[in-house]
Amino acid sequence: MSIRDNVRKMKEVSPTVASLGVDIRNSALKAIAASLSSHSEEIFAANREDLARADADGIADSVKKRLKFDEHKLSDCLAGIDSLLSIPDPTGKVTLKRELDEGLVLERVTVPIGVIGIIFEARPDALVQISCLCIKSGNCAVLKGGRETASTNKVLFDLIRDAAASAGIPAESLLQASAHSEIDELLECDDCVDLVIPRGSNSFVRYIMDHTKIPVMGHSDGICHTYVDQYADQELAVPILIDAKTQYTAACNATETLLVHRAIGASFLPKAAKALAENGVKLRGTEEAAAILRDAGFGKEAPAALSQIAGDDVMGEDDFRKEYLDLVLSVKLVGSVDEAAAHINRFGSHHTDCIITEDDAAADRFMTLVDSAGVYRNCSTRFADGFRYGFGAEVGISTSKIHARGPVGLEGLVTYKYRLYGHGQIVGDYASGKKAFHFRNLL
Amino acid sequence: MSIRDNVRKMKEVSPTVASLGVDIRNSALKAIAASLSSHSEEIFAANREDLARADADGIADSVKKRLKFDEHKLSDCLAGIDSLLSIPDPTGKVTLKRELDEGLVLERVTVPIGVIGIIFEARPDALVQISCLCIKSGNCAVLKGGRETASTNKVLFDLIRDAAASAGIPAESLLQASAHSEIDELLECDDCVDLVIPRGSNSFVRYIMDHTKIPVMGHSDGICHTYVDQYADQELAVPILIDAKTQYTAACNATETLLVHRAIGASFLPKAAKALAENGVKLRGTEEAAAILRDAGFGKEAPAALSQIAGDDVMGEDDFRKEYLDLVLSVKLVGSVDEAAAHINRFGSHHTDCIITEDDAAADRFMTLVDSAGVYRNCSTRFADGFRYGFGAEVGISTSKIHARGPVGLEGLVTYKYRLYGHGQIVGDYASGKKAFHFRNLL
Repeated sequence: MSIRDNVRKMKEVSPTVASLGVDIRNSALKAIAASLSSHSEEIFAANREDLARADADGIADSVKKRLKFDEHKLSDCLAGIDSLLSIPDPTGKVTLKRELDEGLVLERVTVPIGVIGIIFEARPDALVQISCLCIKSGNCAVLKGGRETASTNKVLFDLIRDAAASAGIPAESLLQASAHSEIDELLECDDCVDLVIPRGSNSFVRYIMDHTKIPVMGHSDGICHTYVDQYADQELAVPILIDAKTQYTAACNATETLLVHRAIGASFLPKAAKALAENGVKLRGTEEAAAILRDAGFGKEAPAALSQIAGDDVMGEDDFRKEYLDLVLSVKLVGSVDEAAAHINRFGSHHTDCIITEDDAAADRFMTLVDSAGVYRNCSTRFADGFRYGFGAEVGISTSKIHARGPVGLEGLVTYKYRLYGHGQIVGDYASGKKAFHFRNLL
Repeated sequence: MSIRDNVRKMKEVSPTVASLGVDIRNSALKAIAASLSSHSEEIFAANREDLARADADGIADSVKKRLKFDEHKLSDCLAGIDSLLSIPDPTGKVTLKRELDEGLVLERVTVPIGVIGIIFEARPDALVQISCLCIKSGNCAVLKGGRETASTNKVLFDLIRDAAASAGIPAESLLQASAHSEIDELLECDDCVDLVIPRGSNSFVRYIMDHTKIPVMGHSDGICHTYVDQYADQELAVPILIDAKTQYTAACNATETLLVHRAIGASFLPKAAKALAENGVKLRGTEEAAAILRDAGFGKEAPAALSQIAGDDVMGEDDFRKEYLDLVLSVKLVGSVDEAAAHINRFGSHHTDCIITEDDAAADRFMTLVDSAGVYRNCSTRFADGFRYGFGAEVGISTSKIHARGPVGLEGLVTYKYRLYGHGQIVGDYASGKKAFHFRNLL
């Protein structure tokens, strides 16, 4: 059966799936956890096939690390399911209840979005996490994982779908796409799919956005900033900066640009440069930043990591739009909080940006002016993550401003509907003035 | 200056606009109300120019009625501004506050979306309503109204922008586009515009969706249903149906299809047909519906309004996708609530659909299964409207499931950001197990 036929069936079954109680959805999660546990050897065997193929194909070690699905990853997955079980049902919440007039009551209630397509990277744990988030939130899902994990994903998906079905979730509500060509087929189902969530490289996310009429929730870039203010505690700033840049360079929430207030440039920049160099970070900066470092003794004769900033490679404006995902950091001096915010709003990706300062007014101004999903004070940009926010898990991090922003957990997978309960009320009576609304909130 | 240049400036000023307190925004609304009042003659004179041009161009009366801006429309606008003043600030609301760990506090706070482009029909009152909604919610707006109201809009817009500026709202935060070609220019500004809201015909909204990468909030169709259940109070059903179909046929929330439970087909359908005919409504239906009416004495010799249903024009499936916006109603019989819901989900536009029933279980089932922004019981579908929901005003009605659904007032014009307050926390400490999150909700 084609993707389109499957997705049409899924669309038809989605209201029924949405009508199932949270008890059934939680039972499904428990059944999934039990099934993954009892079939662990089968999963690991499939994963060994994927790993062997990765070896044969000369796949990079960093990718293989993510491909690998062992006892440790399984136990993380099971802990994630446990945590999802403890999170309240995101659907059925009445968020507005208003008597419009005598006997005419309006309610706004959260409901599943419906049919969601999720295209994600080659990580078997992502398949488990994403399908469980969709089940818990009452959604149907089309899942397409990276081809490098095809064998593991097939085993995992079959176990998940069968366990969910045994608990009463219609089997049509979950579908795994495996061929790459099926992505394009999925993107054309704008009459059946309510939301697409692509995870992966920037160019991939942009491709999805450019090739579908389905609303897309994704993030395009992760150009995060750490701004060290004039009133920063510099002893606090250095370890935060090191963590934000180096704790996991390939993450979208890693800091790519360091902004420093001009008033503390000469005192802070050399200190930061030394610590960054010791952590293997290469700096690239404006001529002004380079001059400060040259004056402080860095330069062509300095450690290689810093040679670039010493005048060989002064950055142009557009260089600040670069997402390194590597041990490289852009550096620039600014004259005020407002200038820092303006730089971030112009060159950043509206993901996560931090101010290091002891000055409350500066922090407040920065956090108000910076137009990003996450605005931080005195901590690492690396905290931008659904698990670290206490959401249990995330389907992704949104840099869009519409619908959901930042790490997206269960709440981003629901929408709402309005229910209006009447006793024969007609609009004509209100238009003629025979009756009038009185709008009384009941909640 | 081109639209692009203006919009780029608007984007730059938008964080400042978002940082203004609600006092300034409310002062701006008061200044606008005062200015519109004191310049009413100027506005009416401009409107007379538009009306004269409409006469010369042979514009339809129904359009001219919407073009006209007189004392009555002005006083409606002023009442709308008053009502907006009384609605609490939609921004700055803390909707989540959680201690992730000792001294590491996460907040989610509502903020303006930023820059919104709104393209709307030829109605001067819409210009006032939309710009005031954007000002109240701290957003910047590019406004493009119908060309038939060019003179009135120019006067209104200048008064609004100047009054807002006098209260401290940057003049760059409001822009009026006047040439049609500027719409395409606006649609290309996906790096500066956060949301586009098109209002108008289906084909126009679809054109916008197909020609921009900016997220679009709009409604594509208004195919609303009234389902008369087996356990309906038929005396209640008839006036609801008449109101839903005829109170304002050109509205998107007017009922386009009547579904009737087969068990009451013979008793209800002739009664409904008679009342509909008396209100000038033409019926189109399935052969089954036509046969019932023929048996009841309707037919070729019956009033013209009913002739079509008598077998001359039996509907095919796709006919049920038609939005008449006229005194025409599709009719079909169904065997159950589930079948009614399935028809609505398949052929409707997920706008607003109603069940008429005295049976609580049937109502609940219908309201759960029907996947629409509004699901009603025992009242007219015409209630789907921001004013009638008590939102003060609306920028439009969304049939998308993402971000905002149904009538969209101030709440649909805000998004949120996460603020994280730390004291030097780094992710490395949590990754290594030196520290652990404890997630304590403070709200």
